[in-house]
Amino acid sequence: MSKALERREKLRESLLEAAEAVIAAKGLAGLKTRDLAQKIGVANGAVYNLVEDVDDLVLRVGSRTLARLDAALSASEEAASATPVETLVRIAVAYCDFAAENTELWRALFEHHMPPGKDVPEWRVAEQAELFRHVHGPLLTLFPQLPPAELGALSRSLFSAVHGMVALGLEQKLVAVPLDELRREVALIVRAMVKGLVLEAKERP
Amino acid sequence: MSKALERREKLRESLLEAAEAVIAAKGLAGLKTRDLAQKIGVANGAVYNLVEDVDDLVLRVGSRTLARLDAALSASEEAASATPVETLVRIAVAYCDFAAENTELWRALFEHHMPPGKDVPEWRVAEQAELFRHVHGPLLTLFPQLPPAELGALSRSLFSAVHGMVALGLEQKLVAVPLDELRREVALIVRAMVKGLVLEAKERP
Repeated sequence: MSKALERREKLRESLLEAAEAVIAAKGLAGLKTRDLAQKIGVANGAVYNLVEDVDDLVLRVGSRTLARLDAALSASEEAASATPVETLVRIAVAYCDFAAENTELWRALFEHHMPPGKDVPEWRVAEQAELFRHVHGPLLTLFPQLPPAELGALSRSLFSAVHGMVALGLEQKLVAVPLDELRREVALIVRAMVKGLVLEAKERP
Repeated sequence: MSKALERREKLRESLLEAAEAVIAAKGLAGLKTRDLAQKIGVANGAVYNLVEDVDDLVLRVGSRTLARLDAALSASEEAASATPVETLVRIAVAYCDFAAENTELWRALFEHHMPPGKDVPEWRVAEQAELFRHVHGPLLTLFPQLPPAELGALSRSLFSAVHGMVALGLEQKLVAVPLDELRREVALIVRAMVKGLVLEAKERP
């Protein structure tokens, strides 16, 4: 790598770190590229030599958040002795904990919208689909006969249902739920949901 | 009411309608009080004689959205012959349909955050709590022995789980789900969740 490229890589890394720190502290609304430029010691316009635009910057910070979330969910699965139902419960509680500990960065994943006419890049769609993988494994063990498309839909639904409980539970708007209580509720609902799905699968002709 | 007060009420109504139209078309990010002032024919600063600030304006538009959502959920409950489980499924599907038809206004309910140090007003908290009421009735029929606090938590959890499925299902980010499919998934998960809860209640000592 040339010295110039190396320097650019380092600057880009500093920019992402600075943006991450601002989002973590103040949320997406607090992000101003001018402040970031000043923080990493470049001219205002120079930020756009490092990232395409603010959306690109936010998406790249999101990649870092998603990677940490992915690691947290993987760590929760390591107790190999758990049943598939209890593994799903653990993953859900780990999701809840990650969101509670990284609220603003986690929120930014879902609250950042591309401007009209611009699509979310493929690489981000793939990164997010990776998250469903955690739910997919235990569901496959529970429902081996299910067609792949249905299993995929089920993974997404289960993930999204837990996301909703955590999102509204951590949200001031709907009166925040104490974390311990939220974890219990998430565990209760995931267990009920999966048991109900097992019951329905048995009842199917 | 004095003429001046009457005029102020009318102007406030126009302001809310204009803000609602902008949010419906462009989302919260498109809201500029300057444009609204121009649209209703008052000076920029005069907007703040009608509402306290932008947060107040957004909250008041939210009240209108919540009232329409409340009406849509109530309408879904009218088929009195349905079992409590099927009533819950109907309410969930009605929520899904409302969100699909009013995506930006519905999104604004959840994406608007109060600035640091400012709390959501009590009246809004009460309005949102009212939504859980829809879920509360059928759950009470299903679980008459449950202590009120647990029933409250269950209502919130079920509502939030459905919210999550709809939020991520309608979101471009996680690859939007066709509406028909989303409705089916929501119905499937709600049915499974409630059946699982009934099963667990029976298994309890």
